[in-house]
Amino acid sequence: MVILGIDPGTAICGYGLIEMCGNRLSAIAYGAIRTPAHTPLASRLLTIFNDLEAIIAEYKPELIAVEELFFSRNVTTALAVGHARGTVLLAAARAGLPVNEYKPAQVKQAVVGYGRAEKSQVQEMVRRLLALQDTPKPDDVADALAVAICCAHSLTWEVAYR
Amino acid sequence: MVILGIDPGTAICGYGLIEMCGNRLSAIAYGAIRTPAHTPLASRLLTIFNDLEAIIAEYKPELIAVEELFFSRNVTTALAVGHARGTVLLAAARAGLPVNEYKPAQVKQAVVGYGRAEKSQVQEMVRRLLALQDTPKPDDVADALAVAICCAHSLTWEVAYR
Repeated sequence: MVILGIDPGTAICGYGLIEMCGNRLSAIAYGAIRTPAHTPLASRLLTIFNDLEAIIAEYKPELIAVEELFFSRNVTTALAVGHARGTVLLAAARAGLPVNEYKPAQVKQAVVGYGRAEKSQVQEMVRRLLALQDTPKPDDVADALAVAICCAHSLTWEVAYR
Repeated sequence: MVILGIDPGTAICGYGLIEMCGNRLSAIAYGAIRTPAHTPLASRLLTIFNDLEAIIAEYKPELIAVEELFFSRNVTTALAVGHARGTVLLAAARAGLPVNEYKPAQVKQAVVGYGRAEKSQVQEMVRRLLALQDTPKPDDVADALAVAICCAHSLTWEVAYR
């Protein structure tokens, strides 16, 4: 099963595709969709949307994973994330793909084993769990892979305990 | 020139199409895209997106007008509006239509002549300016027409003073 994890943002939108075979995980592809600054928000969202549609068409994930909304940051950030996140959800819905959402603490728990882990610990564990040479950069890519890993783990648990 | 004003929301997305002939305005069509509660956000956004694409295809507006983001409300609201607004901007960009943004005070100034007008005054003036029998309901529809009127006025001013 191929899972596409996404860390939505209007400037940088991280994505990571992982494959789950039994309880073995491997990274298929990952990267960041970058949109040029000083361009209208609408055209930035269109770039993200088109790139996501191309990624979905190429790698045919069966599931999309994103972090749940968190309400602690400021309103300006929330609006910007909302625009990008809406674009991601729309691309998923157009492709008929279910979207699984996970709380930031769930992602940390799944990847590091501790819900209040530091960002650097998450990144290092993403690298190890997927047997990558280097930590994926920028952070948004590691975060996208982390939420995909969390999704994979939660599916494994569901299967194991049913 | 046909202008499409939109008041984005995930539950109710108001839209209003107005035609500007010289300095005469008339309403072509208006209404609300409603999405069922208790359905996944992704499918609600898809409904909004598909309906907007159909409206754009049918009425062929040359310009889309939306309110600028306002940062006074709470973060949860901002996120929800952000999701819907991203969907609107994306539909505009996909159709190659420019998006003009106006501050809430600009809209009130344009419609009522007073930037701190009450909501009910805006609605009554929308009804009068477009010579409608009744005030468009729900509020989101009147708000969508109001931002379209504001856009029409600002274009008239730009032409007059250039």
